[in-house]
Amino acid sequence: MTKPLRITVWNEFRHERSNAAVDRIYPDGIHQALAAPLREAGHAVRTATLDEPEHGLGGGVLEATDVLLWWGHQAHAEVRDEVVDRVYARVLQGMGLIALHSAHFSKIFKRLMGTSCDLKWRVADERERLWVVAPGHPIVAGLPERIDLAPEEMYGEHFDIPAPEELVLVSWFQGGEVFRSGCCFCRGSGRIFYFRPGHETYPTYHQPLIQRVILNAALWAAPVATAAPRRGRSDALEPISETA
Amino acid sequence: MTKPLRITVWNEFRHERSNAAVDRIYPDGIHQALAAPLREAGHAVRTATLDEPEHGLGGGVLEATDVLLWWGHQAHAEVRDEVVDRVYARVLQGMGLIALHSAHFSKIFKRLMGTSCDLKWRVADERERLWVVAPGHPIVAGLPERIDLAPEEMYGEHFDIPAPEELVLVSWFQGGEVFRSGCCFCRGSGRIFYFRPGHETYPTYHQPLIQRVILNAALWAAPVATAAPRRGRSDALEPISETA
Amino acid sequence: MTKPLRITVWNEFRHERSNAAVDRIYPDGIHQALAAPLREAGHAVRTATLDEPEHGLGGGVLEATDVLLWWGHQAHAEVRDEVVDRVYARVLQGMGLIALHSAHFSKIFKRLMGTSCDLKWRVADERERLWVVAPGHPIVAGLPERIDLAPEEMYGEHFDIPAPEELVLVSWFQGGEVFRSGCCFCRGSGRIFYFRPGHETYPTYHQPLIQRVILNAALWAAPVATAAPRRGRSDALEPISETA
Amino acid sequence: MTKPLRITVWNEFRHERSNAAVDRIYPDGIHQALAAPLREAGHAVRTATLDEPEHGLGGGVLEATDVLLWWGHQAHAEVRDEVVDRVYARVLQGMGLIALHSAHFSKIFKRLMGTSCDLKWRVADERERLWVVAPGHPIVAGLPERIDLAPEEMYGEHFDIPAPEELVLVSWFQGGEVFRSGCCFCRGSGRIFYFRPGHETYPTYHQPLIQRVILNAALWAAPVATAAPRRGRSDALEPISETA
Repeated sequence: MTKPLRITVWNEFRHERSNAAVDRIYPDGIHQALAAPLREAGHAVRTATLDEPEHGLGGGVLEATDVLLWWGHQAHAEVRDEVVDRVYARVLQGMGLIALHSAHFSKIFKRLMGTSCDLKWRVADERERLWVVAPGHPIVAGLPERIDLAPEEMYGEHFDIPAPEELVLVSWFQGGEVFRSGCCFCRGSGRIFYFRPGHETYPTYHQPLIQRVILNAALWAAPVATAAPRRGRSDALEPISETA
Repeated sequence: MTKPLRITVWNEFRHERSNAAVDRIYPDGIHQALAAPLREAGHAVRTATLDEPEHGLGGGVLEATDVLLWWGHQAHAEVRDEVVDRVYARVLQGMGLIALHSAHFSKIFKRLMGTSCDLKWRVADERERLWVVAPGHPIVAGLPERIDLAPEEMYGEHFDIPAPEELVLVSWFQGGEVFRSGCCFCRGSGRIFYFRPGHETYPTYHQPLIQRVILNAALWAAPVATAAPRRGRSDALEPISETA
Repeated sequence: MTKPLRITVWNEFRHERSNAAVDRIYPDGIHQALAAPLREAGHAVRTATLDEPEHGLGGGVLEATDVLLWWGHQAHAEVRDEVVDRVYARVLQGMGLIALHSAHFSKIFKRLMGTSCDLKWRVADERERLWVVAPGHPIVAGLPERIDLAPEEMYGEHFDIPAPEELVLVSWFQGGEVFRSGCCFCRGSGRIFYFRPGHETYPTYHQPLIQRVILNAALWAAPVATAAPRRGRSDALEPISETA
Repeated sequence: MTKPLRITVWNEFRHERSNAAVDRIYPDGIHQALAAPLREAGHAVRTATLDEPEHGLGGGVLEATDVLLWWGHQAHAEVRDEVVDRVYARVLQGMGLIALHSAHFSKIFKRLMGTSCDLKWRVADERERLWVVAPGHPIVAGLPERIDLAPEEMYGEHFDIPAPEELVLVSWFQGGEVFRSGCCFCRGSGRIFYFRPGHETYPTYHQPLIQRVILNAALWAAPVATAAPRRGRSDALEPISETA
């Protein structure tokens, strides 16, 4: 294996404690379901949740995180702006970010995208098929040409994001919609992957192929050790003669 | 000519009133220098400046604007957040935005980009050459393969923006730097062009080729009349049967 | 209207003469069905077909063409390489190209893409929905958020093309597939649009919304009058001193 | 280290045998200079040259190659089409390709790009500075914000390639030009990196930072083990009812 990554899985962790149906699927919380296969792959994984102090992201956690996973839904507004500011700064410095499902509406994802990130949705127990449209991309390593999920929530276009720098997966939904489901972006020195599946009332994160995408995405999003670009006032490297 | 555009040229308009050297170059303000060739091309151009009420952008001005030009530098922080919010909403709805030179650090541009938009800079009276790297792009219609400017301010990489969706111009600077100088982005239904030249102490906006780029960019950024995408809860278009 | 374009509609024109079902739908050939709405919009449209001398593209036709539409299917191999060479050269010089449906496998499209352009397909009288994923793009001007077609042929991913520079439309198919249906590319100074619909046994090109996309695409793909870039051995613009 | 790659370094190997100046810089050929640091990094590297049977690429060499480096200049036309066909097929299947310097005009690179790949050039012993424009990209891992070379050959825009899917490096030249020097493309399942430096009369490939870029590019371009997409006639996954 390559060098283990330091991964932090952030979860709102509210549905699981208030909805018995969600609790049955994710008895330890969505964060633990996401963390388990990453740990099994040898990475150093910690979890953090909304109701912990500083949402679990204080005390140097972000500074010691290579890749941050983010799952949130009903409580986006409760995430404190100063924590969002710190996550944002870390992404620009190079920390990877994997925004999962309803994290499309999280403060951090919207800040990094610069758009509304709005979309169509429907919870109707329907089939989803995620088709690989970039077969050479490392995020689909080891996958077949599509992933079938049922049931799942529908997300439909237009998804108001900037055009993804790399579009990896496109979803088909039984009810008639399509969706750009696996989208790569770079912001500053940081790499961001948006991955659509994962409605809380379905056991999506227990599916091995979904787990594989998330593991691949973490490897893809891992920071690249480059010199931080110098910015601001700069001396010339070449002599500047008169400009007639 | 195609249908005239409704263009609003926004300028901070502070340097011109406090610095005699700038006033000599732009006696009526940078906004009037930018507006004149657009008017001459037949467009309906108004101007707006920071120190007007609502920065000149109240009373339905934005709603009646197809393309907004933005020049700001020393007073970015004085632009009120509620005005930025309204400009942002209009861009997502389809209004074009042309961010000029030091507008790279304006609130509106940073909001739309999702990055720091920082860069290197130097004022040293040096030569700039803008090379066309996308010769079939409408923003370089009627241009030669490069534009030479002297003197100009240097802006150097790394320019912390998302990768432009279309990269049209790349600058060479005498002192040793390069810069992505003509950059296209889409956000929501709006089209955004960042164009580098235009330091206030140089007569750049009087140059016909620079004026041509800005005119071309306004035409490119003009709103496209499409139905606003419907978002939110959506009924299925196809029957959803059991998902065994 | 803007300046009329000189459009050439190229059609293989074989199915219509050998298959009565196709002849009933397109009694004057697919080329005339494509040409009619473009003429109505005021453009100067000529047609050309495979079995004419030089496939109808000799005698200065290409040199006098701003935008070329291409429909071919069963006889790609009969298109002579020297004609393909001339179309290719004209595209790099700036002529627009709109490759329609089964033209994904035409010699000219494959040459410009550099890939196999292969895909999945099925003729099963099924529904297609084309969803707009770039609502601010001029190719979807005047369109609703989706176009419904039934019946149509299915084309499915993976479509082996380079990632489109702009992805405008994504298709949903009743049988379970998705497809990147409206794809923009630039090659040299030329602009290329691939547009999926148009199986010969269905009346797709009589649909007003499909005609609108093709008209919009022709306007988008029209040549931009820029200086041809100079290439080859070049003198320095700046003095080159010793490079210690 | 990650799993060693099987790398094949292909070199025309003509200049070194006919030009004493080149022979002094690369006494074992450019291929050996390129191969040495890759071997040192633990990869399984073989070399192949034009004048070997099948240009050194027969007998299963391509099938056993993860990443192919290509350096050619004066003898592009001597590369046999059937070998180009086989390299092309392997790239679409997933083999990485790193096209170096004058390989911009090689048959294989032009085939994959679909454009002329022409550019400006000048041999005048001038300075080149390669600026990183994508600081989070794995191809610039471990690099400072720029690489300085002197002397080098100049390559200038417009470089007639499709817009790179990722633009990583942009060169500044002393004589007044810029160039997109580090360009990423995907074709089929294969990943392609074009890297500009390396004129045969200069010791560029002995520079550690240049060697680092090439090593990083090999890692980036390594094949991703995904299922080959199935194409052609496909059965429906969902029932197709009447299409009223």
